[in-house]
Amino acid sequence: MTEKTVEKIVSLAKRRGFVFQSSEIYGGLNGCWDYGPLGVELLKNIKEEWWKSLTYREDVEGLDASILMHPKVWEASGHVENFTDPMIDCRNCKARFRLDTLSEQFSAKKKERAIRDLKENITDGAEELQKLTEDSLKNNSDLFADILESKDIAPVLLNGLNCPQCGAPSPFTQPRNFNLMFKTYLGSVSESGNEIFLRPETAQGIFVNFTNVLNSSRQKLPFGIAQTGKAFRNEINTKNFLFRTREFEQMEMQYFVHPSDDKKHFGIWKDTRMQWFKDLGMNPDRLRFHPHAEDKLAHYAKEAVDIEYEFPFGWGEIEGIHNRTDFDLSKHQEYSKKSQLYFDEATKEKFLPYIIETSAGASRSFMAFLADAYCEEKVNDDTRTVLKFHPKLAPVKAAVLPLVNKDGLPEKSKEVAAVLRKSFRIFYDDKGAVGRRYRRMDEIGTPFCVTIDHTTLEDGTVTLRNRDSMKQERVHISALKSVIEQLIDNWGKN
Amino acid sequence: MTEKTVEKIVSLAKRRGFVFQSSEIYGGLNGCWDYGPLGVELLKNIKEEWWKSLTYREDVEGLDASILMHPKVWEASGHVENFTDPMIDCRNCKARFRLDTLSEQFSAKKKERAIRDLKENITDGAEELQKLTEDSLKNNSDLFADILESKDIAPVLLNGLNCPQCGAPSPFTQPRNFNLMFKTYLGSVSESGNEIFLRPETAQGIFVNFTNVLNSSRQKLPFGIAQTGKAFRNEINTKNFLFRTREFEQMEMQYFVHPSDDKKHFGIWKDTRMQWFKDLGMNPDRLRFHPHAEDKLAHYAKEAVDIEYEFPFGWGEIEGIHNRTDFDLSKHQEYSKKSQLYFDEATKEKFLPYIIETSAGASRSFMAFLADAYCEEKVNDDTRTVLKFHPKLAPVKAAVLPLVNKDGLPEKSKEVAAVLRKSFRIFYDDKGAVGRRYRRMDEIGTPFCVTIDHTTLEDGTVTLRNRDSMKQERVHISALKSVIEQLIDNWGKN
Repeated sequence: MTEKTVEKIVSLAKRRGFVFQSSEIYGGLNGCWDYGPLGVELLKNIKEEWWKSLTYREDVEGLDASILMHPKVWEASGHVENFTDPMIDCRNCKARFRLDTLSEQFSAKKKERAIRDLKENITDGAEELQKLTEDSLKNNSDLFADILESKDIAPVLLNGLNCPQCGAPSPFTQPRNFNLMFKTYLGSVSESGNEIFLRPETAQGIFVNFTNVLNSSRQKLPFGIAQTGKAFRNEINTKNFLFRTREFEQMEMQYFVHPSDDKKHFGIWKDTRMQWFKDLGMNPDRLRFHPHAEDKLAHYAKEAVDIEYEFPFGWGEIEGIHNRTDFDLSKHQEYSKKSQLYFDEATKEKFLPYIIETSAGASRSFMAFLADAYCEEKVNDDTRTVLKFHPKLAPVKAAVLPLVNKDGLPEKSKEVAAVLRKSFRIFYDDKGAVGRRYRRMDEIGTPFCVTIDHTTLEDGTVTLRNRDSMKQERVHISALKSVIEQLIDNWGKN
Repeated sequence: MTEKTVEKIVSLAKRRGFVFQSSEIYGGLNGCWDYGPLGVELLKNIKEEWWKSLTYREDVEGLDASILMHPKVWEASGHVENFTDPMIDCRNCKARFRLDTLSEQFSAKKKERAIRDLKENITDGAEELQKLTEDSLKNNSDLFADILESKDIAPVLLNGLNCPQCGAPSPFTQPRNFNLMFKTYLGSVSESGNEIFLRPETAQGIFVNFTNVLNSSRQKLPFGIAQTGKAFRNEINTKNFLFRTREFEQMEMQYFVHPSDDKKHFGIWKDTRMQWFKDLGMNPDRLRFHPHAEDKLAHYAKEAVDIEYEFPFGWGEIEGIHNRTDFDLSKHQEYSKKSQLYFDEATKEKFLPYIIETSAGASRSFMAFLADAYCEEKVNDDTRTVLKFHPKLAPVKAAVLPLVNKDGLPEKSKEVAAVLRKSFRIFYDDKGAVGRRYRRMDEIGTPFCVTIDHTTLEDGTVTLRNRDSMKQERVHISALKSVIEQLIDNWGKN
C-alpha cells in the first residue's frame, strides 16, 4: 500500500463531495468546513451509530440543548475566567501566536541559542529555570516548550528571538490571555448585560438540564444523558483539516453515578467507547489510550484518558473520558441557587452525583474514519483507491448499474434501484464501462454494486459485487434487500 | 374533545420531557429552547423523515454547511442591508417595539382616535394618507397597521399615542432599522474586518456550494440540494412557544431548474410538500396554502406560497415554497466573481438556473405535529390525554410492560425489550397498575404497548395494544418485530 497523506485525503474529499471549504467562492472561512453530499451521509451515519449505541439502552436519555445559553452558565463552568490561551503578538507584522505552540515555529538551533542567552542573562527566576531544566532532562522533553509554559520566564526567552513570520528582532508583546469563546449580543442593544456566548462545548447543556431530565424521565442512578451538537471555539491556529476547527460537532454523554462508584463506571465507559470505534471497523493498531498524568489533569477532572487515533500527521485525540467528580453540579448549584442534589429512595441518602463523561468529536471521528478507510491497492497492473468504510458508515449503501446502457437494462435497473431506495441510500449509474463505474464506487466506499445484465431479464437474478473482495455472486432480486441487510449486520464478524 | 391550548401543550411538553426552557435554572434565555429526552426523538424523527423523502431520490443531494460563513455571503444576499425590522423605543421605559406588530398593542378605540387626530393635523403626506385609507377600506384591513408600514407618516401617528407599556404620553423615538443577524468576531481582534454573522437562514450555504455540488456529484438539471440545520435571528419579540424563537432549525431544499420550467416545478413541489405533512398524519383540515399577493413578495421571489397550520393560537406558516428565480446565483456570481453558470451539454446553452425553494421550519413542524397530535378523550368515566403521533414520528415506538412485577415476568419482559431495542426505541416499565402505565404511554404518544403476562411464559405470546383503538391482540414473540414494522408501514392506509 502506498502512503496515505492528509493532502491525498483532502483532495479526494473535495473532488468526490465529502468536504468543501466553507464559503469557498469567497476565498473560504478559516477553520470552517462544509460537508458535501457524501460527507453529510458519512457524518449522519457516524452520529446515528453513536446515538443508537448510547441511547437505545435503558439507562441513557437523549437531549438537544440550544447553542445559545444564559451567560451565567459560562461563569459557573469557569469558561469566562479560564477558557483562555496565552497569546503573544509580533509588534512588527501583527502575527499572533499561541504561546504553547510557538515552539514548533523555531529550529532546534535557534532554541538552543535562545536558552543559552537566557541562562547567561537571567537573574530573577533563575531558580525556576534551574528546576525546569532538570525536569526537562529527566522527562526528555523540549526545554524551550517547557519554558514557554512559565509565564514569568517566557518573555525573557522570547526577547532573544526573531519573529518566525517576518523575521523582525525581538518584536514580541507580553503574553496575555485570550478567551476562546465567540461573543455576541442578545436583543437589540450591544450592552454588556446582553453579552452571550456560542457554546464552546455541549456538556454544559447537559449539566444544567440534570434535574429536568431526572424529573421527567424518572431515571435512577446510575444513568446518562447523551447529546450531539455543534460547538464553537475561536481558535487562533486552526490546523490539520477537520482536526482543529472553529466550528465543530461533538457527541457527548454524561453518566451520573454515586461517588463511590466512579472508578468502576470510568473503567466500563473507557472500554465501551474504545470498542465502539473498533466495532465500526477502525484499525485497532491505530487506536490507543492516552491517560492524563495526574499533574496535567484539567481543573474539573479526577481522572482522564484520551482515545487517540494515529492520523497521517500523527496521534491525535478523538475522544476523552473524564471523571468530572461533582465539580459541575456543585458549581451550577452554587451559581443558580437551585439544588442539584439527588435523593436515593432506597438508602435515604442525599448527595451530588459524580459524572463520568465520554466526549467524542463527531468531526474528528469523521476524519479518523475517513483516513482509516483510505487505501490504495494494486489490482493487476492498475491501482485502485478504495474507502473501506464499514457498510453501516458508507455514504452510499449500494450502486445499481446496468451492464450496458440499452436492451431494457436501464429500465430494469431503475426498477431495482427504486425498490432498494426504500431502505438504503442508492446510487444509479449507467455511464461508461462497468469497470470504471466499479472504481468510482470503490473510491467513495460503496460496499455493494448490483449489476443488471441480460441474464437478469431471463431469470430475475443480478450480480452482487463486494467492494473489498471484488467477488461477485448472483442473487435473486426478491432476496436482494435481505441479503444486503445481512451482509451489513455480519460485516467483519467472521 | 376538550379544547387544546398552547398552555396545555407547553405544560405537557415540560412535564414529560419534550421541551425545556434553555438554561432554566438560571431563569431561562428568552427565545431559546432545549429538547428533552422525548423531544429530541420527535425532532430527530421529523428531520429523518424529511431527509429520506427529500434525498433518497435520484435528483436531490444532501449538504451540511457551516453556521459561520464568510461575511461577503450576507452582503451578496442582501441581509446586511435589508434583513432589518423597523423599531421604535419608548423614551420613558426603554421598551422596544417592532413597528409592524405595534398595532396589536392598541385598542380599536385608541387607534381610531389617533387616526382622527392624524387626519386633522397632517399637511405633509396628506395624499399618501388618503391613498392608504382608500386601500384599507377596499381590502378591509387595519388602517392603523397600514399606516405603520409608511415610514413617513408613522411617526406622526405615533405622536398622538401613549406607550402601551408604561403609559407615558407620546414617548416614541423615530423608527430605525435594526438588523436581525447575530454578530460576532473571528480571530482574536474585535475589528470590523473580522466581523462575521451567525447565519439567519440555511439557504445561503446551499447557494454558495452550487458549483461544488454540481462538479462532485455530476448531477444535471433539474436537481436539488437539501439541508437541515440551525439558524439564528435576534428577534425582538419572541412568542408562541417554538413558533418565533431566536435559535431554530430549518429543513430546506433548493431545486435548480431551467428558467422556462420554473412554473412546473413550483407546482410539483408545492403539492409534494403539502402531501408530506398529510402522509405523516397531520389533520388536512388544519392545513392550508397561503399564496403571497404579488405586491407582498420578498425582493428575491417571483412567486411564493406558504403552507400554514392552524395552531391553537391561529394560522401560522410552517413552510414556504418560493420561486427565487436566478436572484441568488446572480448575486453570488456578482460578489464572488466566480461563474455560477450551468452548461447544458445537450442544447449547448449556458445560463443561470432558477431556484425553487422549499423551506420548512423543523422547530415549527415539531410544534405543529405536537399540537396536532394532542388530544383529550373520554374513556368511560375517565379522560385520557393522548398524543396521536404517526408511529414513524413517535419518540418511543413500543413499551414493554410485565403485567405484574413478579413471577419471572420482569425477567421475560427485559428479554423481549432487549430484542426489540435492536430495531426501535423501547421503554420498559414495571411500576404500578398496568392501566396507569398504559395512560403514561398514551400521554407521550407511544403507539404500541407489549404486555407480558403469565400466558407468555406458557406459549410465548404477548398482548400488543394499539394506542388509538386501545384494542389488544395476542402476538407470538418471534413475530413481534415484523408485526410492529408492518403496522408502522401501513399506518393510516386503510
